[in-house]
Amino acid sequence: MTYSFDKIIERRGTNSSRWDQYPSADVLPLSVADMDFAVAPEIQEALIKRIEHGILGYTTQGQLVEQIQDYLRKEYQWAVKEEDILICSGVVPSLYMIPRSLMNPNDHAILPAPIYHHFFLGMKQANRSYSSTHLKLKDNRWTFDLEHLDSIGQLNTKLLMLCNPQNPGGTAFTREELLAIGKLCEEKDYLICSDEIHAQLVLDEDVKHTPIASLSPELSNRTITLMSLNKAFNFPGIGLSWCICTNPVIRKKLQEDLASQASHPNALAYVATTTALEKGWPWHAELIKYLRSNRNLIRDWLATHDQVIWQDSAATYLAWLDFSKLGWSNVHTHLIEHGLALSAGSQFGQEYSQYARLNFGIPKEFLVEALSKIEKGIRT
Amino acid sequence: MTYSFDKIIERRGTNSSRWDQYPSADVLPLSVADMDFAVAPEIQEALIKRIEHGILGYTTQGQLVEQIQDYLRKEYQWAVKEEDILICSGVVPSLYMIPRSLMNPNDHAILPAPIYHHFFLGMKQANRSYSSTHLKLKDNRWTFDLEHLDSIGQLNTKLLMLCNPQNPGGTAFTREELLAIGKLCEEKDYLICSDEIHAQLVLDEDVKHTPIASLSPELSNRTITLMSLNKAFNFPGIGLSWCICTNPVIRKKLQEDLASQASHPNALAYVATTTALEKGWPWHAELIKYLRSNRNLIRDWLATHDQVIWQDSAATYLAWLDFSKLGWSNVHTHLIEHGLALSAGSQFGQEYSQYARLNFGIPKEFLVEALSKIEKGIRT
Repeated sequence: MTYSFDKIIERRGTNSSRWDQYPSADVLPLSVADMDFAVAPEIQEALIKRIEHGILGYTTQGQLVEQIQDYLRKEYQWAVKEEDILICSGVVPSLYMIPRSLMNPNDHAILPAPIYHHFFLGMKQANRSYSSTHLKLKDNRWTFDLEHLDSIGQLNTKLLMLCNPQNPGGTAFTREELLAIGKLCEEKDYLICSDEIHAQLVLDEDVKHTPIASLSPELSNRTITLMSLNKAFNFPGIGLSWCICTNPVIRKKLQEDLASQASHPNALAYVATTTALEKGWPWHAELIKYLRSNRNLIRDWLATHDQVIWQDSAATYLAWLDFSKLGWSNVHTHLIEHGLALSAGSQFGQEYSQYARLNFGIPKEFLVEALSKIEKGIRT
Repeated sequence: MTYSFDKIIERRGTNSSRWDQYPSADVLPLSVADMDFAVAPEIQEALIKRIEHGILGYTTQGQLVEQIQDYLRKEYQWAVKEEDILICSGVVPSLYMIPRSLMNPNDHAILPAPIYHHFFLGMKQANRSYSSTHLKLKDNRWTFDLEHLDSIGQLNTKLLMLCNPQNPGGTAFTREELLAIGKLCEEKDYLICSDEIHAQLVLDEDVKHTPIASLSPELSNRTITLMSLNKAFNFPGIGLSWCICTNPVIRKKLQEDLASQASHPNALAYVATTTALEKGWPWHAELIKYLRSNRNLIRDWLATHDQVIWQDSAATYLAWLDFSKLGWSNVHTHLIEHGLALSAGSQFGQEYSQYARLNFGIPKEFLVEALSKIEKGIRT
């Protein structure tokens, strides 16, 4: 089967969080991180078949955990026990659950910066304090500054939040980088929460995603890994996620929080995720090629537009663009005035107002249009 | 369009919470409260159309709140402001949220008995204490014993939980009954949480559901109403619900709890609910007729089987059957031995072990089979 990612599918009027925020056809919105591609036809077919069955009643998770175990074994040579996998309704709800469940009111967390806004919103909702460690550019990759990470530890620091691959920076951290971060966490006795929702969105052919918890039993014992296929298969509107937690004390706390909310994935979330695991990989391989060519298109364009700086993205469909050379007083509104709505840099940390995040999980026609709008923004 | 409710649809092997609990064809499971009918073809069609669109990304609630306002106005002549309606992922999660959000740790609640088990599980999960007030039979209806309700109030009693129509008793409380309960709550200054998920499952033609909060501004001000179309349209596996709360102080607490969980309905839940509101009523009218005839079939059968006692159900598709005359040591296992799995009475309160709840939201062929299995159980 061949798959087409060039097709333009109208999303205005479908209650899309992204498109319906900008109802005017004059603005191209490339903000909220879902893709403008239909889900794999294999998944569409399975969903339709389930709906044609007709009865959409209370549904169990079936064999999903066993399927996830197989997936982790094949993909990462990672053997995880059945009881260590908790099915959840999504990664974002878990980002809100973890500070509340695993940190005492006086505990402190460390978050990388820039970072997806739900990381700090989860801390704020739980009323937990945190510090930021700013990622630094090294060999054109956003990486941890271990000296800084080491220096900002406090007596009450309990938890390091990771996002790997990194959103918005696009870094897929190497095994060596993760081992160094892990060593520091062991020395300081930090727990690690690792959001790995972009694990299946590595674009570079010579790069591989590594779950930090898979590196050693010691690291696994202090890590909660958050995973989901919602991003890579583009069904966040009907998705589910899972937590991997091998430490029984921590897991019990998470299970208690989940039980107290009585919130479960929906019947079609199981269908989408299990079908992705069973039949979605050929589509996914084509998706990655398409996203890679989109990324390369931005890269090529930037080669002749050095007013905009980008460190490139080894992973994700997100480009973290630095507009500071242009001296615009407000990057976000300047681009909207030229018909392009990106995610404002300040959403990822107040200090990043000169940045914006561009979602390139889109048909090429949109990407060409977006780059031409940035060009107009530069010229005026 | 004509609708058929007689069709047998195989649910074993679909991860049905009910059917897959009893994989053997020897046992007919009529426990967990979803129905064995396909959702309305209009809803199936809308869901399939949405999936054929292909992009299942992040989704807003669109015009749902306005649609609910219209519905409340038409159905109950109840004018509710937009901001007083909170969209939630389901009634059960709300039954867990309300004790946690609205009761202080030392507050006490009153629950009717017998009652759907998530009422007391929600209290237990939130670590809040409660007392039970046993409903009594009056004119063949399970109703509140106001004297008892009055007598068990404590200084720290904060909240009365209602379930209207009542699960498992099947009572649709009258306006007069609700006014009397409301008067007591006003005198005692109790909040009221009213689970009205069965509102659209009134079977008696001369009975009408009344939301307690619609009776007066005073009652509205102390009530949180939980509503959903999940039961009446049989899509609890992909559903959503809403809370109605006109008291701004209470509403703020609920909003904070919802924000701290970051849990939202899925994209197809919006499609199912909005389509039910727009196009589902002809199907629903036929459903009610079918359920009524199922109820009458049980009623007629019981007329010649007076070892089993039933007070009848004005509403819901649930029959709360009293097997105490038969003197079985374990009603639940005795019936399973005869091939019928009902919800054990003790699930609705320990003192109800001689009862069982039969789900009659099923094709008639199943109901006839169930009654014949009870008959065998009686004979042996």
